[in-house]
Amino acid sequence: MRKIDPVKRAARRQQILAAAIACFSRQGFHQTSTAQICAEAGMSPGNLFHYFANKKAIIAAIVEDEGRQTLAYFEKALEAQDLFAQLLGFMDLVLELGGDRAYLKLSLEIAAEGQRDAEIGLLAAANDRALQEALNTLLRNAAARGQVDASLDPADGARWIAALIDGIFNRLAVDPGFDINRQKNVLKLLLTRFLRPAAG
Amino acid sequence: MRKIDPVKRAARRQQILAAAIACFSRQGFHQTSTAQICAEAGMSPGNLFHYFANKKAIIAAIVEDEGRQTLAYFEKALEAQDLFAQLLGFMDLVLELGGDRAYLKLSLEIAAEGQRDAEIGLLAAANDRALQEALNTLLRNAAARGQVDASLDPADGARWIAALIDGIFNRLAVDPGFDINRQKNVLKLLLTRFLRPAAG
Repeated sequence: MRKIDPVKRAARRQQILAAAIACFSRQGFHQTSTAQICAEAGMSPGNLFHYFANKKAIIAAIVEDEGRQTLAYFEKALEAQDLFAQLLGFMDLVLELGGDRAYLKLSLEIAAEGQRDAEIGLLAAANDRALQEALNTLLRNAAARGQVDASLDPADGARWIAALIDGIFNRLAVDPGFDINRQKNVLKLLLTRFLRPAAG
Repeated sequence: MRKIDPVKRAARRQQILAAAIACFSRQGFHQTSTAQICAEAGMSPGNLFHYFANKKAIIAAIVEDEGRQTLAYFEKALEAQDLFAQLLGFMDLVLELGGDRAYLKLSLEIAAEGQRDAEIGLLAAANDRALQEALNTLLRNAAARGQVDASLDPADGARWIAALIDGIFNRLAVDPGFDINRQKNVLKLLLTRFLRPAAG
């Protein structure tokens, strides 16, 4: 059997995921065939099936990668001194990602698929839990440093930040009047008043 | 031609919509046939088609009814003296409706269908605009009475309340740890701090 260079293999895997993301963002999961993903990736079906058994395995890998990226982001953010500033920076990033139509469409597809398919639902729920844990840790550490209101339960704070993230994606999908640059400032005001009322 | 009593006709229409809502909440739009809606309503297809030309017309009527109910709610709420209390009462209602699994499932189905079907998307967007206008009016009137911070643009306030409503429905769909009664109080704190920072 031919030995496959692990670096090459990882690059191929990323190439397939990028092609799948492009197809899914354009057409949605259910309107995309693995043949279309192969064409987009410039790869034969036989080759693609070395990496992913089926379309659902590709969707699952995209959701898992998303979770890993979020964790990597927070691992770095939690090293900073000003954790409240890190939270505001993360929410700016959420607004910018939501403003990317392809990213937005894919996120909404994943959310909808999570409601339809139990396995994807479990992966999406695991990402959600990991995000809330990261936000919870950030708020707890920030409270210990006097950067946010210590009387607010960090788990509750994390829940409403997660609700705001969900809401941002929905607003960007349905409300053409939602101006990202303007709303960045309103969101900063909201979070400042909510999380550090003495400073707001 | 037989003349139909308008009261009876309205009652029949409601009966069909209630049956459709029951089917859609259980199975989703795409897994529900008009035959199943007829069976649930105890009605023949011929009779149902006197009221609605097809399944999409039923979905559209459900979305339009939802919009009318929201407007009726705010028409009454805007007559009250304490508009901030009315807003908190509305958000309690949102949390309670979201806690009703059938209502939650139907709302998520409508949101997903609005992304897939342009006509349903337009109806859902019209409801969203009407809700934001009602919230905008409420906040503007409340600011004039000194009940909320007048320095916050009521349109921006309305946008973030709408984002929180979206977020509540998403949280209730994905986060089993989201406890409605507990989060009612956290949301009150969030809204009080955001909208009337002097009182929070």
